[in-house]
Amino acid sequence: MNGFHDECGVFGVFGHPDAAKITYLGLHGLQHRGQESAGIATSDGGRLHLHRQMGLVVDVFSEEVLAALPGDSAIGHVRYSTAGSSSLQNAQPIRCEFAGGALALAHNGNIINSDKLQDILKNRGHVFQSSSDSEVLLHLVADSYDDELIHGVTGMMNKALGAYSTVMLSPRELIIVRDPRGFRPLVIGQLDDALIVASETTSLDLIGASVEREVEPGEVITVDENGVRTFRPFGRTELSRCVFEHIYFARPDSIVFGQQAYTVRKELGRQLAREQPVEGADLVIPVPDSGVSAAIGFSEVQDAPFDMGLVRSHYVGRTFIEPEQRIRHFGVKLKLNPVPELVRDRVVVVVDDSIVRGTTSRKIVEMVRSCGPKSVHMRISSPPTTWPCYYGIDTPSRDELIAANMSIDQITESTTADSVGYLSVAGMHRAVSGSSSDGYCDACFTGNYPVKTKKDWPPRRHGRKDQC
Amino acid sequence: MNGFHDECGVFGVFGHPDAAKITYLGLHGLQHRGQESAGIATSDGGRLHLHRQMGLVVDVFSEEVLAALPGDSAIGHVRYSTAGSSSLQNAQPIRCEFAGGALALAHNGNIINSDKLQDILKNRGHVFQSSSDSEVLLHLVADSYDDELIHGVTGMMNKALGAYSTVMLSPRELIIVRDPRGFRPLVIGQLDDALIVASETTSLDLIGASVEREVEPGEVITVDENGVRTFRPFGRTELSRCVFEHIYFARPDSIVFGQQAYTVRKELGRQLAREQPVEGADLVIPVPDSGVSAAIGFSEVQDAPFDMGLVRSHYVGRTFIEPEQRIRHFGVKLKLNPVPELVRDRVVVVVDDSIVRGTTSRKIVEMVRSCGPKSVHMRISSPPTTWPCYYGIDTPSRDELIAANMSIDQITESTTADSVGYLSVAGMHRAVSGSSSDGYCDACFTGNYPVKTKKDWPPRRHGRKDQC
Amino acid sequence: MNGFHDECGVFGVFGHPDAAKITYLGLHGLQHRGQESAGIATSDGGRLHLHRQMGLVVDVFSEEVLAALPGDSAIGHVRYSTAGSSSLQNAQPIRCEFAGGALALAHNGNIINSDKLQDILKNRGHVFQSSSDSEVLLHLVADSYDDELIHGVTGMMNKALGAYSTVMLSPRELIIVRDPRGFRPLVIGQLDDALIVASETTSLDLIGASVEREVEPGEVITVDENGVRTFRPFGRTELSRCVFEHIYFARPDSIVFGQQAYTVRKELGRQLAREQPVEGADLVIPVPDSGVSAAIGFSEVQDAPFDMGLVRSHYVGRTFIEPEQRIRHFGVKLKLNPVPELVRDRVVVVVDDSIVRGTTSRKIVEMVRSCGPKSVHMRISSPPTTWPCYYGIDTPSRDELIAANMSIDQITESTTADSVGYLSVAGMHRAVSGSSSDGYCDACFTGNYPVKTKKDWPPRRHGRKDQC
Amino acid sequence: MNGFHDECGVFGVFGHPDAAKITYLGLHGLQHRGQESAGIATSDGGRLHLHRQMGLVVDVFSEEVLAALPGDSAIGHVRYSTAGSSSLQNAQPIRCEFAGGALALAHNGNIINSDKLQDILKNRGHVFQSSSDSEVLLHLVADSYDDELIHGVTGMMNKALGAYSTVMLSPRELIIVRDPRGFRPLVIGQLDDALIVASETTSLDLIGASVEREVEPGEVITVDENGVRTFRPFGRTELSRCVFEHIYFARPDSIVFGQQAYTVRKELGRQLAREQPVEGADLVIPVPDSGVSAAIGFSEVQDAPFDMGLVRSHYVGRTFIEPEQRIRHFGVKLKLNPVPELVRDRVVVVVDDSIVRGTTSRKIVEMVRSCGPKSVHMRISSPPTTWPCYYGIDTPSRDELIAANMSIDQITESTTADSVGYLSVAGMHRAVSGSSSDGYCDACFTGNYPVKTKKDWPPRRHGRKDQC
Repeated sequence: MNGFHDECGVFGVFGHPDAAKITYLGLHGLQHRGQESAGIATSDGGRLHLHRQMGLVVDVFSEEVLAALPGDSAIGHVRYSTAGSSSLQNAQPIRCEFAGGALALAHNGNIINSDKLQDILKNRGHVFQSSSDSEVLLHLVADSYDDELIHGVTGMMNKALGAYSTVMLSPRELIIVRDPRGFRPLVIGQLDDALIVASETTSLDLIGASVEREVEPGEVITVDENGVRTFRPFGRTELSRCVFEHIYFARPDSIVFGQQAYTVRKELGRQLAREQPVEGADLVIPVPDSGVSAAIGFSEVQDAPFDMGLVRSHYVGRTFIEPEQRIRHFGVKLKLNPVPELVRDRVVVVVDDSIVRGTTSRKIVEMVRSCGPKSVHMRISSPPTTWPCYYGIDTPSRDELIAANMSIDQITESTTADSVGYLSVAGMHRAVSGSSSDGYCDACFTGNYPVKTKKDWPPRRHGRKDQC
Repeated sequence: MNGFHDECGVFGVFGHPDAAKITYLGLHGLQHRGQESAGIATSDGGRLHLHRQMGLVVDVFSEEVLAALPGDSAIGHVRYSTAGSSSLQNAQPIRCEFAGGALALAHNGNIINSDKLQDILKNRGHVFQSSSDSEVLLHLVADSYDDELIHGVTGMMNKALGAYSTVMLSPRELIIVRDPRGFRPLVIGQLDDALIVASETTSLDLIGASVEREVEPGEVITVDENGVRTFRPFGRTELSRCVFEHIYFARPDSIVFGQQAYTVRKELGRQLAREQPVEGADLVIPVPDSGVSAAIGFSEVQDAPFDMGLVRSHYVGRTFIEPEQRIRHFGVKLKLNPVPELVRDRVVVVVDDSIVRGTTSRKIVEMVRSCGPKSVHMRISSPPTTWPCYYGIDTPSRDELIAANMSIDQITESTTADSVGYLSVAGMHRAVSGSSSDGYCDACFTGNYPVKTKKDWPPRRHGRKDQC
Repeated sequence: MNGFHDECGVFGVFGHPDAAKITYLGLHGLQHRGQESAGIATSDGGRLHLHRQMGLVVDVFSEEVLAALPGDSAIGHVRYSTAGSSSLQNAQPIRCEFAGGALALAHNGNIINSDKLQDILKNRGHVFQSSSDSEVLLHLVADSYDDELIHGVTGMMNKALGAYSTVMLSPRELIIVRDPRGFRPLVIGQLDDALIVASETTSLDLIGASVEREVEPGEVITVDENGVRTFRPFGRTELSRCVFEHIYFARPDSIVFGQQAYTVRKELGRQLAREQPVEGADLVIPVPDSGVSAAIGFSEVQDAPFDMGLVRSHYVGRTFIEPEQRIRHFGVKLKLNPVPELVRDRVVVVVDDSIVRGTTSRKIVEMVRSCGPKSVHMRISSPPTTWPCYYGIDTPSRDELIAANMSIDQITESTTADSVGYLSVAGMHRAVSGSSSDGYCDACFTGNYPVKTKKDWPPRRHGRKDQC
Repeated sequence: MNGFHDECGVFGVFGHPDAAKITYLGLHGLQHRGQESAGIATSDGGRLHLHRQMGLVVDVFSEEVLAALPGDSAIGHVRYSTAGSSSLQNAQPIRCEFAGGALALAHNGNIINSDKLQDILKNRGHVFQSSSDSEVLLHLVADSYDDELIHGVTGMMNKALGAYSTVMLSPRELIIVRDPRGFRPLVIGQLDDALIVASETTSLDLIGASVEREVEPGEVITVDENGVRTFRPFGRTELSRCVFEHIYFARPDSIVFGQQAYTVRKELGRQLAREQPVEGADLVIPVPDSGVSAAIGFSEVQDAPFDMGLVRSHYVGRTFIEPEQRIRHFGVKLKLNPVPELVRDRVVVVVDDSIVRGTTSRKIVEMVRSCGPKSVHMRISSPPTTWPCYYGIDTPSRDELIAANMSIDQITESTTADSVGYLSVAGMHRAVSGSSSDGYCDACFTGNYPVKTKKDWPPRRHGRKDQC
């Protein structure tokens, strides 16, 4: 029941006769990262083929469409996009022709100096056809291209600031790039003789591929018929992995940044119970599905029974028609309904992963309250969200973030809960990494943005070139 | 992860200015009972308006479609249909003109003497346009009609054997009928001044209506501008409420046959743990979503931790494209993925509500096994399913029911589990009703079919007419 | 540019391995008779298969749909329907199960005592699911059925008054029926060993079938594996063939009621020029496409050059969006545009086949006038349309028929033409049949309705059974 | 029945409150120039809005889509595209952001040095996302842009060789450009206070706009809130207007290059009759609709009656399903059917505008022959088509052009006609311009291509700037 939205998931395969179908399957394992559009580009060794469309993976690709995507290598993409720019124009992969030939690109992340880069390129006569960062990345590659594609790619990495887990496909090559800070996850695996790359391990699990390792922050991997090569244009760099991948985005069955998301999430719940116990609690219920793992952890430490006290309907999409004024406000009710008998006369703890605007939390509290509990306590398995994300998560502006504008007391009153308790920043880091906040970006909780301007960017490339 | 499918859900409203929209919302709360087609018929006091289509409720009805369904009363329907007869022709409600004027009908259940009734009517010159029981019911009403609609309805009840929770709409009247055995649930409630009827209480919860009571088995309720009247043409009758509504069909937040489905289901899990404990179990995981409540109950009695060790993807629909031979068999993997870290080195109990063909269970066991547990034990919160249902549930034939053809040992071997344990029939009844099997149909487990021929049918009507 | 609409076209084939595809092709040759819905029913010898949908033939049937219509015999239908009842519910063929088994039916025409027949059947317990005459015909067949289908068919013919060119398909038999008055055309032909039946010869031409003969008025033809049999339950009957088929409905390349429609239409134009010449005319232009043949005939007798002075666009469908008030009234302009240079400074004769409401004619006159002609004269190749049709043509009510409410002078004024001239009733008959009005229905011009009540119906069946 | 296809039609409006709807209507009047995709871009003074889609104008734009295209200025486009590149990617208008802001462009024509220009731009780092000339034109504008848009436009005109009738829309300006050779038509008109531009006058007629004048070859017209300005960067230039616009492309009611297309076409037929009369001809029939005007002209000079001996069906689209082998080759029959009675025992002249591959002509001759004429003579109102077009018409390659590979005798034999006669090149020019071939491109008949390389391009701009 989260108000945040990740922007994307990416996938790539090189060297499999069913590249398009493998990608189609792999994208199913990333569907939770983006539901607005999906696309696949393949290479048959000579030409690139592309299909992308608004909609879920299962709806975008028919047997016929997949048959029209021949070749042994492919990249794929799923996308969530904000209302304003929700259009086919921004769907990915995008494909272009430039001096180096044909190139398709799919990325997950956000380029913070995108506008500035566009202006520079426009002044050199460049023409843009969308508002997407992906197009900027392609232009940067083309702009730095110099007989070798890798030069274009490293040129791009020197200029684009921010978060990018990116896959590119030329007629003969798959190129994998993760930004030097490593904001977004990206892992590689193997299926038969084919190399696979995906945003999450769920995607590899689904196709039966082995999970080999994370793509390292700042690493470029190229795959062609001569094999796999890896480059690290910036050398070792300081990491800023997104802590919210652990709190919410990644699927619980994913291994993210080397850890099982489910276990981390449960530990967040345990830590939350240590910091914010509820006296006399005799029922712990999650907001499904986002709060389940944390609620189980909370229940263990709190030593109060866990139950699925809110039932979720999985059939309601976005196109729901609101009835007239007199019977309005069904949004949340369509998705959630309490189990009255469980809740009645209990001291109930409702666990969720975050509160964004607060409107959903209030409806949940009211819903639970209507079943006659003794009291209703909200517990949140992350710190108050007070700052927007500039690295690839679509957050509301600060005006809309309840925790940026209200005290805990005010939030408690606003949600009509008997109490509201958040996890501390320190507690969060303890649960995630067992120790310090090193290596993670927690800007949405602290406002400490790791990359703001060019000077925050990793040192220029040393010319070091590692062979894989 | 159940292989059974309920046939339908029905809804009705009388006396609300937004009848079509209320019905649209109400059908969302019944969507789990049927996902193949949806329909709404409304009355504007003079004419009946109808829209029905293949697809989910959210896809079938647009703003424009709802606007073309005027009036203060409405009935609605969601339907699951078997492959063979999956067509618009069989979508409901169906609407007709007969001597009594216009009439629309929607029903949940199955008429066991449908073929015979059709033959009799055909010999009198009747013409049928579908293979649906609903059309037979309409013909029976028309055939017994005699100036008053209630005569047609009671005539129909005298002839149609089996399960029917049915709503009918004439231009000026809503008629609600539940068969004398009460196989399928049907409840009434109130929203403002309007009477509401629905298959499950979830539907009433969603629209904010109060839950008044169950429609009694054998009861006919008519609602028109003069008020509500109730008839019991057969007097008191012996009940055969479907025990599977508790085990699987109803949503856990529904109150079915007077009991909270979630609580009953959890008690089934508790009883299962008493009967079939797993020695040394250190993890209890459900097959989501069907096994969750029972697994929580099992975990309590077994005193082993409950965790969501299998993660379900909610984005995969029916039109999924199978890849080539070499990467086949993704059916289950697309929906479920284990959380490896949880399962590793544990004695794992996997709880589900039933085993139908056994193929899914085998895949689940293999999936869990691949994560390196000590052992994997299947526990099923219902008795072995050995007989088909003739009262409205779409079951495979006996050939396909694994428990009708194999011993427990053979099933264990077939699923590759370390052990398989089912709940006993007696244990099931204890969990459901606290005592005997009275009032429930358990034919799918026992083969004791409560209604086979005309002689099993309730006594003819005594002429008693109760005013509400 | 005609405001009348025929209701339907029918097609049938027995004994061809590609029955569905032959029917699909044949319906293309009847598409001008109905553009709102299309349908095909086939028999595989045991079961009937049906597909029908709103839309043009080319849109309704895909490769996949045709593949799902197996069998050696088929019937098909195209339909135009009035706004009020334009729905899938009324699309044809319709299929039913009755005491005689499965039966599908498609018809062209109109049953004038349909309401009365429905009432009688409803009082016997019959249930109707549409407002179509076709369903009434099926019920009549079922009602009179008595071990042999032919009894059902002749029973139907005894009761249904009006116009019906009908094809029926049972699992093993194709039945062809034309009403005793022969209002609507129906011809049979041969393709390889298969018997073909169609509303017009264009349909037979298209599939390369020979044209054998008209189905005779009052004739029933049955085709099964034992061969072709013909019945004439009423013996010889008085004919009322629709003269408007010649004036407008049939395609000019059709041979209708034994005559080439193009030639008849040209002769109507020649006769019109004899009766209503335009002094000093130096240009004759048709309203395309309906007025072309008559205009060529007119031009020959008038001895003034023929030119295509109005150009028609064929790309505009029904869903055209009207712009705001200030730029309205584009309806006619979207379809027609004059050739200015042709018209300028000429005495122009505009020839059309009929005037219905007069609004289109006015727009055409204004359009031509805007190009600067000396004068504009409307000539109509049929008499004033003053009465509605009850035999299968969808006409406006008398209120809306301009010629039922205005004198020729008033019509001239209303259309803003310099003169308007109609063909006489006598002239029309001379052009059509070379002599008297015998054998034709001209009720829309004269109000002389050949069938009003039961007594106008042909003598009861004599029991005479003619073998083919 | 022509095998050639024009590439496009363009439309523009500045200063009308209903700009999108005016454009929608205007595109209907150009629909014959392209049926594969349609698009409209509007400006609300600040932003550009765009909708484009595969399909006919009437299908691409709904009420809702038009409502989402606000503003007082707009450009529109219809497109025919060859199979290979038939995709949304190439639909127009295309919209971009460049240094000068937002810009949308729609064009009709073909740039012969497009590949070379792309290479040059790619080497400067440009990125292309489609294979369309339109994108090249946008890049050229952006590349030459220098604070004023007009500099970008004239820069583009200096580099792009070939045919372009182009409209561009910036947030505040409409720019109209016609190439210096004037290959494709482009006219301006007025509606209320708004300036309108369109490929053909039919488009202006439809919306009720006046026709002001042709956009002159080499002329640039800019329209903004300060008024209309015109530029002629190259001064006066030698014209190469496409003679095929007169022979086939333009609608007969269009005034093209200052002449009524219908009249020119009729004169082509008259000249054809002078050059290639048919002895003893007693019937002249056109291949509809392309041969109608010429056939009327032929009939006048030949003094043989004109009749519509072939009837065209307008309902068949591209998605037609071919039946099995045994009943194949229905392509032409679905569109055309002869009127047997007209043709029987006559010496028939069939007039068409051109023969491309010869397959259609053969089918037409066979079709007419099957009705029993004395003889069948093909007469073609243009010279043999022997060379491909590089200026915006989609022609087959020379291998496929029958006249490039066969003598007249061979063509006669191939089509099975009794004789085939073409118009001479000289005769064509006489009919079109009354005299010499000056000012027209006839390369498809002669191979005399007016623009092949840069040196054929008009003199560089003199800096002369004419105020309108």
